[in-house]
Amino acid sequence: MSELPFLVLIRDELEQVEQLLRRRPPDTYPAITEAIERLVSSGGKRIRPALVLLSARLCGAGLERALFAAAAVEMLHTATLIHDDLIDGATVRRGQSTLNATHSPAETVLIGDYVFAYAAYLASQTESTRLMCRFAETLMVICQGEVRQMLGGRGGSFSFREYEQRIYAKTASLISLAAEAGAILASADERAVQALRLYGKHLGLAFQIVDDVLDFTADEEMLGKPVGSDLRQGLFTLPFLLFIELEAQHPVARRALEGEYAAGRAPLSEAALYEAVQAVAGSKAIEQAMEIADRHIEWAKEALASPALSSCATDARRDYLIALLELADFVVRRRF
Amino acid sequence: MSELPFLVLIRDELEQVEQLLRRRPPDTYPAITEAIERLVSSGGKRIRPALVLLSARLCGAGLERALFAAAAVEMLHTATLIHDDLIDGATVRRGQSTLNATHSPAETVLIGDYVFAYAAYLASQTESTRLMCRFAETLMVICQGEVRQMLGGRGGSFSFREYEQRIYAKTASLISLAAEAGAILASADERAVQALRLYGKHLGLAFQIVDDVLDFTADEEMLGKPVGSDLRQGLFTLPFLLFIELEAQHPVARRALEGEYAAGRAPLSEAALYEAVQAVAGSKAIEQAMEIADRHIEWAKEALASPALSSCATDARRDYLIALLELADFVVRRRF
Repeated sequence: MSELPFLVLIRDELEQVEQLLRRRPPDTYPAITEAIERLVSSGGKRIRPALVLLSARLCGAGLERALFAAAAVEMLHTATLIHDDLIDGATVRRGQSTLNATHSPAETVLIGDYVFAYAAYLASQTESTRLMCRFAETLMVICQGEVRQMLGGRGGSFSFREYEQRIYAKTASLISLAAEAGAILASADERAVQALRLYGKHLGLAFQIVDDVLDFTADEEMLGKPVGSDLRQGLFTLPFLLFIELEAQHPVARRALEGEYAAGRAPLSEAALYEAVQAVAGSKAIEQAMEIADRHIEWAKEALASPALSSCATDARRDYLIALLELADFVVRRRF
Repeated sequence: MSELPFLVLIRDELEQVEQLLRRRPPDTYPAITEAIERLVSSGGKRIRPALVLLSARLCGAGLERALFAAAAVEMLHTATLIHDDLIDGATVRRGQSTLNATHSPAETVLIGDYVFAYAAYLASQTESTRLMCRFAETLMVICQGEVRQMLGGRGGSFSFREYEQRIYAKTASLISLAAEAGAILASADERAVQALRLYGKHLGLAFQIVDDVLDFTADEEMLGKPVGSDLRQGLFTLPFLLFIELEAQHPVARRALEGEYAAGRAPLSEAALYEAVQAVAGSKAIEQAMEIADRHIEWAKEALASPALSSCATDARRDYLIALLELADFVVRRRF
């Protein structure tokens, strides 16, 4: 991803973040080092560190603290994935075996906890108590969202509002934190912090909607995991909710409304899953979901037009603002 | 515990910590509030918050930040217990059902993660980046210790050195952090910070040794959990290691050396467990283990004699130093 034109600006910094992500305290237990190494080297799009770095450069934060914040955000993201995959029983992510596929549940819980602690350690190296507080608050939002999803019947809800709350907690909260982090580190004008946070929120919502669309339409190999994975878990995402609304008489929609896809029922057969994925992928729901994602991207860009950011962006820094705009466009354009 | 004579000094502060522990952000999901409420109200000895408060008072830290640090340490301790109990399959702690006894593993993992995040949030309210960094480092030590214990064959080791490393990671690291926290918040002389940290380390080692002795000798009702629980999990603690050394020809010791008590074997029958617990409880191993605990308490008290602390303790503050000395004596005297 660092080859994307808008990231060329921060290519060196992204490389330094990679090095930070691979660094471990000298006395780390080999099994932990190995597990984190595998998780970190499996790649991922690094969109969160890129946001931290662009926002830091835009607002004039010091490089070293920005690098630690960028690594901390990515490490926190990694930690949440470890426990998520364990809970969902996912065995493949980014084309690689998940930790729970090769370790016992107990080991996976503990290694996940260690990675949370390591993320907090990296965050503490920014020496910003405000940023550390925002880190903790964001993790609370993420965990609370997951508990709510689980206790609320694993997403078998047909509410668009609940869907948005869920993807805010799951994805947009951390992307929002990444976007505001640079402004916080730079002690920028409060309106600049809020503008970047709002940008990140809409960017994150769009990002997750696109992810949810790709779960119906993507090529498995490119996606690095099986398609239809949300539905397999009884989780109704935006494309599916729109499909049910648009094609209420379709057999798939009728079965959904009768509760057949809800978690807790007998697992879906691969044939039934395939039928549902095909139905949604071939419907207008995909286009409509992408329109909603596009709308969030427009709102994200509007947030960047805040006067607080234009004044913060001197001529020398204006390129970072442009990169943030381009990154927003990329999020809805990507196919993986 | 706040009725103990050396804690009367900080009774009001301990009460304020209780209130902080019961406070939740306004939009907390009810299931999370209820779970934390149950964990927090089940009591526990509150030795960690007491240490933070005494060290803060001794070194002259501000009250509000000390209260947040005390609540943060207790919340971090609570979070570690949630995942520990899940992993150990423990159903009772402090006389109450554990979270994993009433929630699914997935819910328990996520609620535990939330409590970690909440502990980090409380720590961030101290506005001390150094303390927050120490929090993160300590959690890394705790998790790493658990991973090591698990991958190293669940404690079926006969090494005294490994035992000490394990109880340092599990217990002494956090007690040590609690003891130094007040000094860090007060920006005390570095030697004062180190002296309190050393005090906490030995106090914590003694505390865990006494816990491990009580697991053989205590009254179940007073202990709030079944005795022999370590051995049931194939975990060899100091009294058992000493017993094997002292009575190598005893049938229990011989069976242990043949690997019969190690984790991964067939579970111990209650009769076999009872026999082993009785044998250890009736042996000189108990006395010897308590002598080692006493030695750590002596070292803890010696650390408090550091000139850096005497100079930090004005006449008005000397009572807190005495309370820390008394707390050390209490740790080896307690029977629960």
